[in-house]
Amino acid sequence: MILVLKDNASQAQIDNLIKWLKSLGVDTHLSVGRYQTILGLVGDTSGLDEDLLSSLDFVETVKRIQEPFKNANRKFHPDDTVVDIGGTKLGGGHFQIIAGPCSVESREQITYIAREVKNDGAGLLRGGAFKPRTSPYAFQGLRAEGLELLKEARKETGLPIVTEIMDASHIPLFEDVDVIQVGARNMQNFELLKELGKLRKPILLKRGMANTIQELLMSAEYIMAGGNEQVILCERGIRTFETYTRNTLDLSAIPVIKELSHLPVVIDPSHSTGHSRFVRSMSLAAAAAGADGLIIEVHNDPQHALCDGPQSITPDAFSKLVPDIKAILDIVGKELG
Amino acid sequence: MILVLKDNASQAQIDNLIKWLKSLGVDTHLSVGRYQTILGLVGDTSGLDEDLLSSLDFVETVKRIQEPFKNANRKFHPDDTVVDIGGTKLGGGHFQIIAGPCSVESREQITYIAREVKNDGAGLLRGGAFKPRTSPYAFQGLRAEGLELLKEARKETGLPIVTEIMDASHIPLFEDVDVIQVGARNMQNFELLKELGKLRKPILLKRGMANTIQELLMSAEYIMAGGNEQVILCERGIRTFETYTRNTLDLSAIPVIKELSHLPVVIDPSHSTGHSRFVRSMSLAAAAAGADGLIIEVHNDPQHALCDGPQSITPDAFSKLVPDIKAILDIVGKELG
Amino acid sequence: MILVLKDNASQAQIDNLIKWLKSLGVDTHLSVGRYQTILGLVGDTSGLDEDLLSSLDFVETVKRIQEPFKNANRKFHPDDTVVDIGGTKLGGGHFQIIAGPCSVESREQITYIAREVKNDGAGLLRGGAFKPRTSPYAFQGLRAEGLELLKEARKETGLPIVTEIMDASHIPLFEDVDVIQVGARNMQNFELLKELGKLRKPILLKRGMANTIQELLMSAEYIMAGGNEQVILCERGIRTFETYTRNTLDLSAIPVIKELSHLPVVIDPSHSTGHSRFVRSMSLAAAAAGADGLIIEVHNDPQHALCDGPQSITPDAFSKLVPDIKAILDIVGKELG
Amino acid sequence: MILVLKDNASQAQIDNLIKWLKSLGVDTHLSVGRYQTILGLVGDTSGLDEDLLSSLDFVETVKRIQEPFKNANRKFHPDDTVVDIGGTKLGGGHFQIIAGPCSVESREQITYIAREVKNDGAGLLRGGAFKPRTSPYAFQGLRAEGLELLKEARKETGLPIVTEIMDASHIPLFEDVDVIQVGARNMQNFELLKELGKLRKPILLKRGMANTIQELLMSAEYIMAGGNEQVILCERGIRTFETYTRNTLDLSAIPVIKELSHLPVVIDPSHSTGHSRFVRSMSLAAAAAGADGLIIEVHNDPQHALCDGPQSITPDAFSKLVPDIKAILDIVGKELG
Repeated sequence: MILVLKDNASQAQIDNLIKWLKSLGVDTHLSVGRYQTILGLVGDTSGLDEDLLSSLDFVETVKRIQEPFKNANRKFHPDDTVVDIGGTKLGGGHFQIIAGPCSVESREQITYIAREVKNDGAGLLRGGAFKPRTSPYAFQGLRAEGLELLKEARKETGLPIVTEIMDASHIPLFEDVDVIQVGARNMQNFELLKELGKLRKPILLKRGMANTIQELLMSAEYIMAGGNEQVILCERGIRTFETYTRNTLDLSAIPVIKELSHLPVVIDPSHSTGHSRFVRSMSLAAAAAGADGLIIEVHNDPQHALCDGPQSITPDAFSKLVPDIKAILDIVGKELG
Repeated sequence: MILVLKDNASQAQIDNLIKWLKSLGVDTHLSVGRYQTILGLVGDTSGLDEDLLSSLDFVETVKRIQEPFKNANRKFHPDDTVVDIGGTKLGGGHFQIIAGPCSVESREQITYIAREVKNDGAGLLRGGAFKPRTSPYAFQGLRAEGLELLKEARKETGLPIVTEIMDASHIPLFEDVDVIQVGARNMQNFELLKELGKLRKPILLKRGMANTIQELLMSAEYIMAGGNEQVILCERGIRTFETYTRNTLDLSAIPVIKELSHLPVVIDPSHSTGHSRFVRSMSLAAAAAGADGLIIEVHNDPQHALCDGPQSITPDAFSKLVPDIKAILDIVGKELG
Repeated sequence: MILVLKDNASQAQIDNLIKWLKSLGVDTHLSVGRYQTILGLVGDTSGLDEDLLSSLDFVETVKRIQEPFKNANRKFHPDDTVVDIGGTKLGGGHFQIIAGPCSVESREQITYIAREVKNDGAGLLRGGAFKPRTSPYAFQGLRAEGLELLKEARKETGLPIVTEIMDASHIPLFEDVDVIQVGARNMQNFELLKELGKLRKPILLKRGMANTIQELLMSAEYIMAGGNEQVILCERGIRTFETYTRNTLDLSAIPVIKELSHLPVVIDPSHSTGHSRFVRSMSLAAAAAGADGLIIEVHNDPQHALCDGPQSITPDAFSKLVPDIKAILDIVGKELG
Repeated sequence: MILVLKDNASQAQIDNLIKWLKSLGVDTHLSVGRYQTILGLVGDTSGLDEDLLSSLDFVETVKRIQEPFKNANRKFHPDDTVVDIGGTKLGGGHFQIIAGPCSVESREQITYIAREVKNDGAGLLRGGAFKPRTSPYAFQGLRAEGLELLKEARKETGLPIVTEIMDASHIPLFEDVDVIQVGARNMQNFELLKELGKLRKPILLKRGMANTIQELLMSAEYIMAGGNEQVILCERGIRTFETYTRNTLDLSAIPVIKELSHLPVVIDPSHSTGHSRFVRSMSLAAAAAGADGLIIEVHNDPQHALCDGPQSITPDAFSKLVPDIKAILDIVGKELG
């Protein structure tokens, strides 16, 4: 961390600050220049409050140089994290396709799709039971009943299940869920993140539509600070001025996250683009860019999906996509499953 | 709502759709053109699922013309809503300044600031007890204890209190709070909104950093659909590429919201800009633009605030600001308090 | 400027860099820390190439602390610049309203509007002769003929004229124009800016839709580096995800620019919002926020304007707006004209 | 195009409008509903001025359904355009890598790099002679001399050359350039586009940092309306709130452009990310997503590049990248060269 001091900083103020920082275990180096005086903080500054330092009236700006996250930081954990979901591995060379419908609608629907996607190469089953909807008048999901149907589909196919939680009070209902998903709108629901940090269960954490990569890692840090280290990051599109796609899929987030963190990253080509016809190209691109997995919406009857129909591909399209993903994984040195 | 149909739409498909829409009470008008066939839906379409319609394979695009919100819509409620907070009125010509520190830190701090801002013209007291922080290592607020201190400051000064809730499970703690604030990061925490809709207590709903005005109104709709009509909207800056200010304050949201909705709107010049030195000009601008109130951070000792110090002004600066706000309210035909 | 060095930086590399910087007149201070080594550059670094320094393989990051602009910088020119347009002053307490139609359409139209807005308090006349249009099939302006009509309106009313240039090769045509406007899409047309820097004539420089405030000041610097110091900056809305307004008017740019630069800043409430019904509130807000002027579209017959009709107000609405602007200027200590 | 009319629209106004539209060759269908009256325009509406229609006081909103571009529209030109650059084909299955340094610096530099990248599989040589720089104090390119050096490198290697133009007045200097590049900042320099439309020479048109895909296609339309149909589109990153990469590369623009237009699209992984270490993954992703080419910065000595060093890869890294691109092209059914 670097503090640029104002011209009016007195020697006494500077001395006090240096003394206080030393008491927190942070060393300082002072550079007095013609236009600016700079105080370099060179120890472990992750516990320092940037806002507090900024508010000192003799400080002009504070620039953080070290990342403010620790558990999620590759510097302190150079090897890739491999998340183990009951034997199904994700990360560190293991690429997984998580597939399934937007919403769980019925027993027939979810078991049918589960069987289809399993046959075609999916390693996990997704399906929404609790659905975050912009409008209070839209279908809100089958909720607890949907969770039960997911478990039946798991029993039938052996696929571990991934489904979204919307409130910390629902955690008991998710006890038997394999991977708990935190949606984009809840990425900074810190009370929920803290509760999930107390579990010992993989969490799929989606990036918020307007959140930076660093904020995504800080939210992972909330979970990891509680002792739960099995976090899977998910890029699902950010909000920009472009309106042709629902959001703008930020694939450059893949190499950036790989550099900053050891956590695996999966891509959601369905919600990011919002159109099934763009899912194929973005899936291949994600695999080529180094992702550790995909989360794809597949629906047997896109015409009658209760929500988010336009972005779901058919089992047939899914079946044609997987071999090309495999071929690309071969080039980048990863393996499906 | 308008559906643009694809060239390949069969007459049978169109007939079925029209029949189905009629069963939902929606009339249709069909326009068959050289390049496009258009189906206009002209009844009450707020219950229709746009996504479902988009997913029909003979539909090219769906364009919504009527707003999807009802309770918050000025069309169905032409007069301004005036929120009554134990006799303190906000909206419909009554302008209120909500002032106080970022975080409640101690009894002395909160009662001192409460007295100061009351003397200078504030109508409500703000102060954070539960604090949403990007980092798990930053100060998280005094939580329940902070709420108690706020109530003591209210007892001392008579100012109603405004403070943020972070999770639906905390609602019982907020029973005696006058206005419950929903922060920007929770604007689409729909489970929380639904619970707040069951209360009969004013809610200050902040716009998310990446949320459109329509989404803000849809989140208000969540609360109002539950029967709680006392919603105050708050613009606090949106996320853009500009980094000189923390966020970009969208003051044009004021006339837009006034056109679309009858709900009052207040502006947060502190969090939006992130710097105390921009609070004065943005406060005056908000009053001139037609806002119904301001929520301003005031701290007796900005040098030692436990969080968000850089954006807090001193009681002295606050005291100099209020008369100029009053003078502007006079021009735009509003009254302080 | 601060360089954070990589762990692998050798002493020889560091010594060479320090020597080279010294040869450019830049002093350095080295801070060797546990995790990072920091090199502070504390002289005049505006001539240094940030990209070049970043590319050195032992440099981790480069952080600029001093602003890269000089002529536009308030640090080196503390007093407000007052632009003098043939006796009409703009800046430093002198507030000007620039009003007129989007496009010059006919002699009758432009002289009629010129007379109207002059009577109501406008100090300068605007009108587009060369029109930047997104579509090649849209009306492109009367071009040279439009300039002649503007001059006739000036002759009739005495109002100085402001009009947009689109290409450096047109400069000879603009010899007798009082203020040359550079549109948002040309803000980084550097060849044009260089040519305008050779003139001794006021330039109204509009901020690009996706340009930061610093980039706006760098473009002003291009003009000023050529010796033309009469630059008026104009905020006209930036591009964000919000679609209800055409762009998002960034009024917080006013206090930011005032802090960084001595140049005057005017606000365009017409193009930024894109709707005439939002012009009034944004004009009052701009005056309250400390702007030095407004550029407002006024059209006698908004129903038949050849372009940008929806954002033009009528002379009647303009006439009702000016007294309220005056009243607000009184509060913030400025004067109209 | 669809016009939603206001409640207050009189029958006479509507009749007049319908008559006027008919005179322009546009048919209409009127749908009178309970809440809204809708006028559907179903002929060729690309010549209609949306703004003019919006400005009619009995029109509430105008919604365009048909794209406003013709020459660039796939609907009227279903087959992929293949641009022929003196025998080198780009588009329609022919994938090209355009490689070379950011700036042309010397004869040795440019011929050395040209030979290297040719050996490794590049089909065209890029190099900046005229350089758009944010700061007037930064290196502005060798200009005319740089063009001569590029031609010498072409003579030596046979690679066609691609280089950027910054002003219409420079066109004569570019007579012997194979592909003229229009930079992101000039994407809406309409005077320049019109002049380039008069040439019969391939134009590489880069998307502006804040421009939508539709605006990119409208700028292509400017060139094509002049009769020059050899336009290559280039996505090079858009401006978002994320700051870890210089811009956010929008790879979903590839399938979107492919759907809307027949023009080829190339990706710039260097400028978009701003860091050489992200070039590899984004190049592979672009090939997988269906791009027709790449434009990559390669520098023999990134440590001493005069500009944009951090984003240039070495010939060695380039050499390792090409075989993997080839392998991916094989999967998606394209061919290098």
